[in-house]
Amino acid sequence: MSKSTAGRFFEDFRVGQALKHATPRTVTAGDVALYTALVGARFALPSSDTFAAAIGYPRAPVDDLLVFHLVLGKTAPDIALNATADLGCANGRFLSAVYPGDTLTAASEIVGLRENADRRSGTVYVRTLGLRQDGAAVLDVVRWLTLPKRDARALILAAEKVPKLPEIVDPTGIGRACPPLNLDGYDLALSGSPHRFDDYAVGEAIDHRDGIAVDDAAQQMAARLYQHPARPQCDGRPMVAGAHVISLARALSCNGLANAFHIAAINGGRHMAPLFAGETVYAWSEVLAKAELPGRADVGALRLRTVATKQRPDANFSRQQGDTPATVLNLDYWALMPR
Amino acid sequence: MSKSTAGRFFEDFRVGQALKHATPRTVTAGDVALYTALVGARFALPSSDTFAAAIGYPRAPVDDLLVFHLVLGKTAPDIALNATADLGCANGRFLSAVYPGDTLTAASEIVGLRENADRRSGTVYVRTLGLRQDGAAVLDVVRWLTLPKRDARALILAAEKVPKLPEIVDPTGIGRACPPLNLDGYDLALSGSPHRFDDYAVGEAIDHRDGIAVDDAAQQMAARLYQHPARPQCDGRPMVAGAHVISLARALSCNGLANAFHIAAINGGRHMAPLFAGETVYAWSEVLAKAELPGRADVGALRLRTVATKQRPDANFSRQQGDTPATVLNLDYWALMPR
Amino acid sequence: MSKSTAGRFFEDFRVGQALKHATPRTVTAGDVALYTALVGARFALPSSDTFAAAIGYPRAPVDDLLVFHLVLGKTAPDIALNATADLGCANGRFLSAVYPGDTLTAASEIVGLRENADRRSGTVYVRTLGLRQDGAAVLDVVRWLTLPKRDARALILAAEKVPKLPEIVDPTGIGRACPPLNLDGYDLALSGSPHRFDDYAVGEAIDHRDGIAVDDAAQQMAARLYQHPARPQCDGRPMVAGAHVISLARALSCNGLANAFHIAAINGGRHMAPLFAGETVYAWSEVLAKAELPGRADVGALRLRTVATKQRPDANFSRQQGDTPATVLNLDYWALMPR
Repeated sequence: MSKSTAGRFFEDFRVGQALKHATPRTVTAGDVALYTALVGARFALPSSDTFAAAIGYPRAPVDDLLVFHLVLGKTAPDIALNATADLGCANGRFLSAVYPGDTLTAASEIVGLRENADRRSGTVYVRTLGLRQDGAAVLDVVRWLTLPKRDARALILAAEKVPKLPEIVDPTGIGRACPPLNLDGYDLALSGSPHRFDDYAVGEAIDHRDGIAVDDAAQQMAARLYQHPARPQCDGRPMVAGAHVISLARALSCNGLANAFHIAAINGGRHMAPLFAGETVYAWSEVLAKAELPGRADVGALRLRTVATKQRPDANFSRQQGDTPATVLNLDYWALMPR
Repeated sequence: MSKSTAGRFFEDFRVGQALKHATPRTVTAGDVALYTALVGARFALPSSDTFAAAIGYPRAPVDDLLVFHLVLGKTAPDIALNATADLGCANGRFLSAVYPGDTLTAASEIVGLRENADRRSGTVYVRTLGLRQDGAAVLDVVRWLTLPKRDARALILAAEKVPKLPEIVDPTGIGRACPPLNLDGYDLALSGSPHRFDDYAVGEAIDHRDGIAVDDAAQQMAARLYQHPARPQCDGRPMVAGAHVISLARALSCNGLANAFHIAAINGGRHMAPLFAGETVYAWSEVLAKAELPGRADVGALRLRTVATKQRPDANFSRQQGDTPATVLNLDYWALMPR
Repeated sequence: MSKSTAGRFFEDFRVGQALKHATPRTVTAGDVALYTALVGARFALPSSDTFAAAIGYPRAPVDDLLVFHLVLGKTAPDIALNATADLGCANGRFLSAVYPGDTLTAASEIVGLRENADRRSGTVYVRTLGLRQDGAAVLDVVRWLTLPKRDARALILAAEKVPKLPEIVDPTGIGRACPPLNLDGYDLALSGSPHRFDDYAVGEAIDHRDGIAVDDAAQQMAARLYQHPARPQCDGRPMVAGAHVISLARALSCNGLANAFHIAAINGGRHMAPLFAGETVYAWSEVLAKAELPGRADVGALRLRTVATKQRPDANFSRQQGDTPATVLNLDYWALMPR
């Protein structure tokens, strides 16, 4: 038996299969600093213990997307080594806040399998739980990937299944990772924007204006920070990992959404076109919906679509504008804002 | 009203205007490690809790220039987004030590405005205070920038003012961020140089010998560490941010000034020529003056001019040598040394 | 007397000479996070406080090779500034675990000197001790370097000496940095491999499969993290520092040796060919020997040869395969594994 692994192929998965992933990770102030330096995050909450304490957190929580990437990074050796496409994710919910010093592990269940039309590959649906050292779930998300067959002649599986996934996470159940906020302590000068929940309207679009030239070294360091196994780069221009694109879009969105302090749920994320190192990425967002959270007068939820593009969005972008060849990411999520 | 900001222009400022900047930042051991890895700092004090404790600090303080860059980084969204030149700084004083765990915020006052001869832009003089979570000022510095007008026809301001700034910070008032030192605990083998305050003579020049090839990834990560808003890179070779050049010069100066353990004040800093990624930067320093600090027998202050250049300084460089086209930075500061 | 140093030359060393190196370093969670992101380490023990506590460590120790590089980095200003070759190391033993918060210093003794046949240079043998703040030795290693003479006509030294060094560290004395393990708490799903000490056979070879494209920015940041003095890059393709190659090989070896949780001793390391930024490095390992440790039923020691290559090793690599032009590193070490 070989001591090293070449990764699983499509026929290695079964519906209901449970996977406990390797490399538990104690998240530290070092990870937080590196994340800031790699993606350019500028939101006040994960940057500052005093801001966090003033609004009701015990101290600065770890950035939601850093948690997301660290948890999903653990699944890579078991699921994604041979994946040819990361097709999407749905029903992502942040369930508990994570603080420096907490240790994250990940466990997954295969919740669906479907052979592709080419019969040489299939789609694997994976539900992944991120867990804290005390057993609390911090993240629950389903994603699906294309995996080739090891043996193209492998038979069609008896038990194909495509899971039912909600198009939108029900907002009445989100926000558990956010403690009750003390709005008196929420300083809009320190957060960087005067705009609260009530200032945003459904249909409103926000040009985030800033752009960032993606450097290959930073995106490679990010992948190693998330402990993805090393993969030789393909020839040609290095392609930027999807995780990094999501973080860049979120970081850019601070200019216009600085008070969207917490991503409570991810309805869906789709990578529309590859982004290459050296290209410049911009972002704009649209308010798709607004929701009050049951029993909470402190925060409301904005359903946002944040779009990362390779071109500076012009002044006339809008929700009527469909995706263009310059669109690299469509991220649909619920973000909390103070009321 | 747009939710995102394109930054202020010249006519958006008024003398006396107060600005409270966003994104308070808890400085952590992660920031410190990253700063070391990005700029190559090798001074003993910010590297070691035990060295710090042996000489009278509670533990290793955060590097002075990391504090400087973090504080000034906060002013960027409010002041510098549209700046076409960062002209200089003066009267910079480090007022309290910063330790990992401290949270920094920044507040500024516009202390001067002057329309430029081209009438399309002006100079904005900004005094910035860096503040610790307990309200103590950690940094006080004035700098001035060129800002274009949004509307080139905007009228000349009624209240132009150019602030009086000292050419040199009075050394009798500096050193407050440095506790009384226990010189018995100051180990010259661990600091890396046998040369103390009394060993340096006014007029003496020091070739720092080492050179560093500036990599673009590191300088971009540094800018993101300081939470500068993302800016698309201009075409052509990427230019290195001034903050990074200052840090590289200070790091290089360790070879010859290893006991200049603390920058107590910055008299002035001027960027003389652009530095581009891929170029190699060297440094040399000149002792401009020496000062005793009232009531302190432990430390003395050297007034240093540290010059960063793109060429290896030859053996005959001296204070007679003026700036050359290879000069990229002239930094004039007071550094403390053990006596 | 010049205040800065150009580094020592061959004739500046004497057998028996003691050197106390500069820049004590408090190792922090920031250094650990950066090391992970720079080299791609994925071993469970240094990643997780909970994994560490479950098996008997007080918390996650600092990665052995990070300790190794931090300690040897301190010797560079005193020994290696003018070195033209880093020829090898031997008798390296990790003697105490290091935890974030510990401060490392380094002290060396010149244990051998030999003029080279060209009479213009010589070999300097250096024994270096890494020390913790409490005085405990954490690392003891001998290495040898080629140093040019300052003056090629300098006389042959009276006292030449080549130290006797063991080809292999005696395994009966290793493992002191590893506390007694609680094997009940050793979770093979979390470590990432089901293979324990007894599953490996002498002569067995392991293809680590993964490959990593070396980026120049990461290897330069690593050198600065270890506080090597800045050196201008030579023209042409940037060469990757030997320390970084060792770390990459170790990181790659996780796929196949995930339970080799601790490097207890380094028998020898030789850099066989330069690695340049942009090249992709792979690794394979061979089990050279196995040893039980006196009085320890918890762990055994594998003597491993881990070979880094520039080419994907083919399926037929084996211990019969000698070094090829693609071999960049041969690292011979004792690693501990749970029994």
